[in-house]
Amino acid sequence: MDRVRRYRLLLLPILFILKGSPVTADPPNVIIMLMDDMGWGDLGWNGEPSRETPNIDRLAAEGLTVPHMYTAAPLCSPSRASLLTGRLPIRNGFYSDNTHGMNAYTPQEIVGGIPDEEVLLPEALAARNYTSGLIGKWHLGHRDQYLPLKHGFHSWFGAPNCHFGPYSGITTPNIPVFRDDHMLGRYYKDFAIDKNKGVSNMTELFIQEAVEFIERESSKGPFFLFWTPDSIHAPTYSSPHVRGTSRRGRYGDAVKETDAGVGAIVEALRTQGVDNNTLIFFSSDNGAALVSKEDGGSNGPFLCGKQTTFEGGMRAPGIFWWPGVIPAGSVSYQVMTHMDLFSTVAQIAGAEIPSDRIIDGLPLYNSLVHPELEILRPVFLYRGDRLMAVRKGSYKMHLWTFSTPTDELARGINFCPGEEIPNLTTPIPTNHTGQPILFNIEVDPGEKYPLSRFTQEYSKQVTELQQVVSDHEAQLVPGEPMLNWCDNAVMHWSPPGCEALGECISPPESNPYLCFWDH
Amino acid sequence: MDRVRRYRLLLLPILFILKGSPVTADPPNVIIMLMDDMGWGDLGWNGEPSRETPNIDRLAAEGLTVPHMYTAAPLCSPSRASLLTGRLPIRNGFYSDNTHGMNAYTPQEIVGGIPDEEVLLPEALAARNYTSGLIGKWHLGHRDQYLPLKHGFHSWFGAPNCHFGPYSGITTPNIPVFRDDHMLGRYYKDFAIDKNKGVSNMTELFIQEAVEFIERESSKGPFFLFWTPDSIHAPTYSSPHVRGTSRRGRYGDAVKETDAGVGAIVEALRTQGVDNNTLIFFSSDNGAALVSKEDGGSNGPFLCGKQTTFEGGMRAPGIFWWPGVIPAGSVSYQVMTHMDLFSTVAQIAGAEIPSDRIIDGLPLYNSLVHPELEILRPVFLYRGDRLMAVRKGSYKMHLWTFSTPTDELARGINFCPGEEIPNLTTPIPTNHTGQPILFNIEVDPGEKYPLSRFTQEYSKQVTELQQVVSDHEAQLVPGEPMLNWCDNAVMHWSPPGCEALGECISPPESNPYLCFWDH
Repeated sequence: MDRVRRYRLLLLPILFILKGSPVTADPPNVIIMLMDDMGWGDLGWNGEPSRETPNIDRLAAEGLTVPHMYTAAPLCSPSRASLLTGRLPIRNGFYSDNTHGMNAYTPQEIVGGIPDEEVLLPEALAARNYTSGLIGKWHLGHRDQYLPLKHGFHSWFGAPNCHFGPYSGITTPNIPVFRDDHMLGRYYKDFAIDKNKGVSNMTELFIQEAVEFIERESSKGPFFLFWTPDSIHAPTYSSPHVRGTSRRGRYGDAVKETDAGVGAIVEALRTQGVDNNTLIFFSSDNGAALVSKEDGGSNGPFLCGKQTTFEGGMRAPGIFWWPGVIPAGSVSYQVMTHMDLFSTVAQIAGAEIPSDRIIDGLPLYNSLVHPELEILRPVFLYRGDRLMAVRKGSYKMHLWTFSTPTDELARGINFCPGEEIPNLTTPIPTNHTGQPILFNIEVDPGEKYPLSRFTQEYSKQVTELQQVVSDHEAQLVPGEPMLNWCDNAVMHWSPPGCEALGECISPPESNPYLCFWDH
Repeated sequence: MDRVRRYRLLLLPILFILKGSPVTADPPNVIIMLMDDMGWGDLGWNGEPSRETPNIDRLAAEGLTVPHMYTAAPLCSPSRASLLTGRLPIRNGFYSDNTHGMNAYTPQEIVGGIPDEEVLLPEALAARNYTSGLIGKWHLGHRDQYLPLKHGFHSWFGAPNCHFGPYSGITTPNIPVFRDDHMLGRYYKDFAIDKNKGVSNMTELFIQEAVEFIERESSKGPFFLFWTPDSIHAPTYSSPHVRGTSRRGRYGDAVKETDAGVGAIVEALRTQGVDNNTLIFFSSDNGAALVSKEDGGSNGPFLCGKQTTFEGGMRAPGIFWWPGVIPAGSVSYQVMTHMDLFSTVAQIAGAEIPSDRIIDGLPLYNSLVHPELEILRPVFLYRGDRLMAVRKGSYKMHLWTFSTPTDELARGINFCPGEEIPNLTTPIPTNHTGQPILFNIEVDPGEKYPLSRFTQEYSKQVTELQQVVSDHEAQLVPGEPMLNWCDNAVMHWSPPGCEALGECISPPESNPYLCFWDH
């Protein structure tokens, strides 16, 4: 029984939302633009005072804005894995249980990656003859079996990991840049990034590759482009002709160049005459990394940032654009998560949604074309393997809270700089399951004024949300954690293609160890 | 020598900006819409997640957005007095020196008000045959000599003070609502406000009055309408048909109804065929009052709120709309202050700008029609009689800082709830003149990351800004403080017109005392 049919049986009131299918003989192209560490408040459309994102703002003005869009995790790798699988990290394995409730991701010493058993969006779309391309950062594991072309993508230009570096090549090799299944070179060596000046032409390349992909694929059939430039992630960078042109310093320059890329991509669609047959979704993988200080972005009115399950960590820009199909200038108050993208895109393409597993995303095509529709559904906010909070309707209930560990604060690391809410931005993981903290997140998006536990509103909502949580937990079968083990031998010593370039380095002896996740 | 000519002599590079005059035979109508305690972040246009201000957002999309718009003071009365006179409160007398650096305003026990010597915008416009109407809150003093019709307005519907109450009529009388020069009745008695339910039809009346004003005046000649509804000021209220319809509770309802008023006013202009000959300016008198908790608004990414000289206290929405003249969808990065409205509107109307006094506002017509122009000019941020900070270009320098006094914090009053920046959000007035705190406010609009005093950037900018401050202070001749004296006998016991209504109350004996300003 597929997901849609199961919902029909269980949730009669939402029948209208999920019924029917937009499948046509001519399924649309799909572009998912996923920014890296860009904050909700970095868009002019979302109030950034310098208003330097005219192309993204135009996308929003011509499309649908979803202000209540959540990422599936407060950091990169699990967020991306969940968007592509439609499943929570706790299911698809993008977590660690080395330490409970800590964020894990895929540095280059990680052993694990996306399991073969997971069905990724490009794999689901393959049955509908989509050609899928990834341009930008991957971050779902970098050992051979985890690379994009093993998981449904037909082409790739970009890197498997963050552009951190430069590395010596002795203790840590520089991150490779791939073309499809082989490396083209390495960051800092063959693909220059000047960290001091914040200069690199990588975004320019990612834009050019995207335009060429569109030019190449538009005439052939439906395509799926996953566009994931990483210049907004610290250390931020922009091309020499952009660096110094924004009003917001090097962070603003990175945003500005990425915005120009959005414009170039839309322009390419128009030039190819496929703009009316292309769905664009624009978002970011998590909230702005406030820990990066001036080299990080803005989460607007929201509390804290990346790494946290406060709104600033997991509320992301949400823009859908599909001229002639999605009403221009519309707003949907539907509470959505990135995981809905998997189900919604599959639904739109007429592709099968796997029926042999729990898919957390909902197929929400009807909510895109009828923005007035709203399904009351929960969104679960995890930090690692721990359910921290749940959002449903206007309410958000915190079961656990955690901001920045005290020892990291002492080292200048702060995920909530300048912000302190008593009993909420706690420096140690704090258990509130006995007396959850409840917010009306529409009235109080900044999570400043917990509802009094002496009110009927509190009792009613907490009781209801606790039931939602126990239903969720009763059904939950965690996937095997893929981010437990690290090993320096799995680093990018000798990526595929290194021989031809003479860039292979002998790896050290394998010495697996439990990765340490400190927050 | 008038202001414009003086600038020509002093500031050659800005000649182009200030030269020339837009005076035509047919000067435009002018509407200034000044919201009460609405925050910068309360507009959908500025990122409010519920996006419930479609009419204001449309005004912005069809007009010019000024993200760097400052109020002249972090609270109501001095802010309004300065907008209408083009002069800082320290000059026009809207301050107190009972206690240095404390905010003063015009409660109903205040003795003072706007001095006769001040030239208000409607007075300046009278020479150009403008008919000026005030609809909404006045707040520039309520004793007979201070009322709007004594200071250039030809008509008035509204109240002289905030709608606080209800009062007993024994220790404090309810605030009267005026028609022109006489009271029509009182709040809570004749003009109902249900504080518990947050219901009143006052905004409906203010909208209806504005539409009627436009219908009446459009055919006659140029008009100036100062529209100042006060429903967004706590205790917030909205009309019965609006209450409960927003996603943000009673605060959101008040915003939503005011937004509808903006729509009705624009519609009235279109119906009368004067939309292309009307300049609208939309703003708020100060930042959102975060002290009001859920009954207060949002200052978006800015620090603190009303009562403070942090950005959240004095950065306000800034939208100019004049179809066919001001380019649609444009942004001006000009650092502006409300005081520029006085000079700019006078300039546009061809009215004389007083040359016998310092006017702090600049005539910025050219910046409105050529948004790419930017004049480097300082904006001085005062709290009462104390210069707290100065903004010029990208930089803001704090000389003094003050958030909420400790004893008020203990009583649950907090102007910076959930926010704490070391050495900045200080609970006592703190003197930093020896070592000012400097921010690049474009890179760091949240005032989180002070620039290190060990940098060349700090030395250069602080030196320059200190010169700007000493030039300002050397020229400054403070006006006589009008907000020093209070007297319960001046309260609204027997406003003009009370006899006809049988609403006169005998005042207590006069007993002037120095007003106490506690923050």
